[in-house]
Amino acid sequence: MTTPAKTPVGTGPEPYIVVSSDTHAGLQCEEYRPYLESSLHEEFDAYVAERHEHRRIQEEMNAEFLAEWEGDNAEGLLGAYDPDIRDKVLDADGVAGEVIFADGDAVTGQESPPFGAGLSAGQITDSRQAFGGARAHNRWLEEFCATNPVRRAGVALVPITHDVDEAVREIESLAGRPGIHGVMIPTMWHGFPPYGSDHYDRVWAACAETGLVVHTHSGEADFDAYGENVAMYINEVPFWTHRPLWQLLFSGKFDRFPGLKYCVVECGSYWLGDLLWKCDVNFGASWKAKKMGSRMKGLLTKLPSEYVGDSIFIGASTMSTEEIRRRHVNGIDALMWGTDYPHPEGSWPNTVMRLENDFREASIEDTRRLLGLNAIDCYGLDFDGLTAIAADIGPTPESLGQDPDLRTPPDATRTARWWLDEYDCSLQY
Amino acid sequence: MTTPAKTPVGTGPEPYIVVSSDTHAGLQCEEYRPYLESSLHEEFDAYVAERHEHRRIQEEMNAEFLAEWEGDNAEGLLGAYDPDIRDKVLDADGVAGEVIFADGDAVTGQESPPFGAGLSAGQITDSRQAFGGARAHNRWLEEFCATNPVRRAGVALVPITHDVDEAVREIESLAGRPGIHGVMIPTMWHGFPPYGSDHYDRVWAACAETGLVVHTHSGEADFDAYGENVAMYINEVPFWTHRPLWQLLFSGKFDRFPGLKYCVVECGSYWLGDLLWKCDVNFGASWKAKKMGSRMKGLLTKLPSEYVGDSIFIGASTMSTEEIRRRHVNGIDALMWGTDYPHPEGSWPNTVMRLENDFREASIEDTRRLLGLNAIDCYGLDFDGLTAIAADIGPTPESLGQDPDLRTPPDATRTARWWLDEYDCSLQY
Repeated sequence: MTTPAKTPVGTGPEPYIVVSSDTHAGLQCEEYRPYLESSLHEEFDAYVAERHEHRRIQEEMNAEFLAEWEGDNAEGLLGAYDPDIRDKVLDADGVAGEVIFADGDAVTGQESPPFGAGLSAGQITDSRQAFGGARAHNRWLEEFCATNPVRRAGVALVPITHDVDEAVREIESLAGRPGIHGVMIPTMWHGFPPYGSDHYDRVWAACAETGLVVHTHSGEADFDAYGENVAMYINEVPFWTHRPLWQLLFSGKFDRFPGLKYCVVECGSYWLGDLLWKCDVNFGASWKAKKMGSRMKGLLTKLPSEYVGDSIFIGASTMSTEEIRRRHVNGIDALMWGTDYPHPEGSWPNTVMRLENDFREASIEDTRRLLGLNAIDCYGLDFDGLTAIAADIGPTPESLGQDPDLRTPPDATRTARWWLDEYDCSLQY
Repeated sequence: MTTPAKTPVGTGPEPYIVVSSDTHAGLQCEEYRPYLESSLHEEFDAYVAERHEHRRIQEEMNAEFLAEWEGDNAEGLLGAYDPDIRDKVLDADGVAGEVIFADGDAVTGQESPPFGAGLSAGQITDSRQAFGGARAHNRWLEEFCATNPVRRAGVALVPITHDVDEAVREIESLAGRPGIHGVMIPTMWHGFPPYGSDHYDRVWAACAETGLVVHTHSGEADFDAYGENVAMYINEVPFWTHRPLWQLLFSGKFDRFPGLKYCVVECGSYWLGDLLWKCDVNFGASWKAKKMGSRMKGLLTKLPSEYVGDSIFIGASTMSTEEIRRRHVNGIDALMWGTDYPHPEGSWPNTVMRLENDFREASIEDTRRLLGLNAIDCYGLDFDGLTAIAADIGPTPESLGQDPDLRTPPDATRTARWWLDEYDCSLQY
C-alpha cells in the first residue's frame, strides 16, 4: 500500500478553497415517493404520517426554538433540496464544495429518507425497508449532486448490516454514478456481526475497489441506556460514532483492502489524539510487547497513528478552537472542517464569522488542509473547478486575520505526537 | 451537600504516606470452600475444576511469560492471601496502606472468588451464585483486612444487578465490619436496568448512608464485539469501566444521595479531562443552554467537573507520566495512585524505581495527594496509623529527586481547566 499523493499546499494570499465535509440534504419526506419502489408505497404512507405526527409533537415541545430557527432561516432551509437556494447559501458562507449526507432537517426530521434510512438506519429492523429507503435517497441524491457536480459530493446510504450481497450490489451500482463519492453505513451494528468480523469483507473490498469512502455519522447511540436523559446521550454519542474506526483498524481491514478509506463524521476529533497515544504504545512500546506476547502479532503493518490521513479521515464538522489547536496531534492531513449546514448545531449562517474567529492563530498551510485540501484529497474532488469557485467567494488569509509569515514546522506532527519519542515507539509485532 | 474536609497537605521533607488505591487479594480458588454457603458446594466443585482447566490452558498458551513471572516473584505472589508476606511486599514497595479488590491472580485466574464473583461478576447469570460467591469473598476479606486494619481497606463484592433487596441487605451488613471501606459493583449492567435508572436508588442510598465507596474496576467489556482481537478489547475497556460514572452523575445520584462516592479503578485517567471539558460546556455555556432548551434542566446542581474530588474519585493505578502531568485538569484531589499488586501490569515489584522515575517534576504537595492523601480522605483511613508506618518505609521528596521549593500555584486547577474561562462556564439550568 502506498500513501496517496496529497495536493501541494500553498502559503500565499489566495482565497481558501473551503469544502464543508459535513452538510445535509434531503427531500421533504413525502416527496421521496416517486424515488421509492412501488412495493413499499403502502408502508411508506404510514411512515410519512408518523413523520408528520413527530413534527406536531416537536412543535408542541420545542415551540420557541423552532419558531426562531425556522423563522430566521426560512429561505436558507429550503436549500436542503432546492439547488439554487443551496448555492446561494454556500456562496454566502464562503463554502466552495460540500460532502452531503442525508437528513436535511435535524430539528423535526421532516427530510429523513423513507423509513429513517439516513442517520437512523441502524434502527430499521426490516431489510426491505432499509434497502428500499436507502435506494430512494440514493436515486434522488445522484440527481441533486448532478445540479452542480463540482461543488457537491454525495454520500449514499448502504445498510450493510441487513444483507452483504445486496450491499455489494448497491455499492457496485453506485460506483458509476457521478457525484457519489462515498457510502454511509449504519453507525451501530446492533445484533448483526460487528464491523471487525469477516462478515462484511466483500463490502470493504467493493468500497476499496470503487474508491467510495466509508462513513459513520453521529446520531445513533445506546438509547436504551439513557431513557430521557439527553446528557447521557451527548456524552456517549462520540464513542458509538467512532467505534467502527477501531473495529476496521484492529481487524486489519486497511491492510487487507488497500485503498479502503473510512471517515467518521460529526463526532469531533478531541478523542483521537489520546486514543492514538494509547494504541501506538500498545503496538509500539517494547515493554508492552513483552507482556502482550503473541496476541497482537500480525494485526497491523504499521503503528495505528500512521493510518490517520491515509486510510482514516475525520469529518470533524465545526471544530472547537481547542480541536484546531490540537490539529497536529490529531492529524493535520486527516481533519476536515465542516459547517453541518443546514443543521442548527453547525456554523451556518455564521460560517464566515466563525472562520474569522477560530483560525486566526493557525498557519495558512494548516488552514488550507483543514478547510478544504484534505477533503479534496480524501474524496478526489475537482481541484481546478473548486479553485475557480473559491476565487469568487472564499475567505482569504487576510480576511481571517492570519499572520502571512507563520509557517508550520516540518516536524509539527512528530512533536505533537509526544509519545512516539517518550515510549520510543516502533511496530513490535 | 458540603464538600468533605480534606486532610491538610504538607510541603516538608517527611516521607510520603503511599496508599495503593488498587491492589488485589484472594484465596486459591478451592480455599474459598469453607467461606461459601453449603448449598452451593456442588456447583462450586465444578467451578474449581473449570478454573484448574483454565490454568492448564494458560500454561500451554503463555508458557514463557508465566514461567518468568511466577518464577521471579514466587514468594511475593503468595502475598495474595498470606498477610505476613503481603506486609513484607508492601514494605519493600514503600507502600503504607492499600485498597484491596478481589482476584489476586490476574494471569491464570486461580484466585477468583467462587463463580468469578470478582472482576467477572457481570458475567454470572445465576443470582444465587452471584451473591453466594460475593459473600464468600466478603467473609474472607473481612478476616484478611483484620490482620492489619491500619494498612488494609477492603472493597467487598455486591452484585447489585441481580437483586436490589439482597444487595441492600449485604451493604447494610458490610457497614459494621472493620476493614471494609467500599463495595465493587459489576462493571457492566448487561440486560439489567442501567445504573442511572431509579432501579438501584436504594443501593446508592445505602452506600451513602454507610459511607461505603462504590467502585467499578476494569475487566469486563463488550466481549462479543471483539472475538479474539485483544487490541479491540484494550481500546474499549476504559469506556466500559468508567461508563457508570456518567450514569450516576447525569441522573443526579450525587445530588440526591449526599455522601455517595464513586470511584473508577484501573482504567487510567487520560479520558477524564476532555470529558469534563465537554460536559462542563454542555451544562455551563450559555449558547449551549439556548439550544438544549429545557432538556438539561434540573439534572445537576453544579458543573460536572465540580463533582470530581467530592463525589467522584479515580483509582488511577500506576499512572503514566503524561497522566501525572495532567493531574490538575483531571483532578488533583480525586486521583489516587496505585500499584495493582500482585498483577503484572502494575508497578510491583519495582514500585520504588517507578516512583523515582515518574514524580520528579511534581510538587511535593501534589505528590502527597496523589500517592496517599486523596485515598485517606476518600476512604476515611487512619492517618496517624499510616503516618507511623510510612515513617519507616515511605519514599521521601528527596529520594524521588524532587525540588523542595516547587509549589503548586493556588489557581492550578482553574488554569488547567481552560474551558471554564474560554466558554465562561457557569451552571445554566
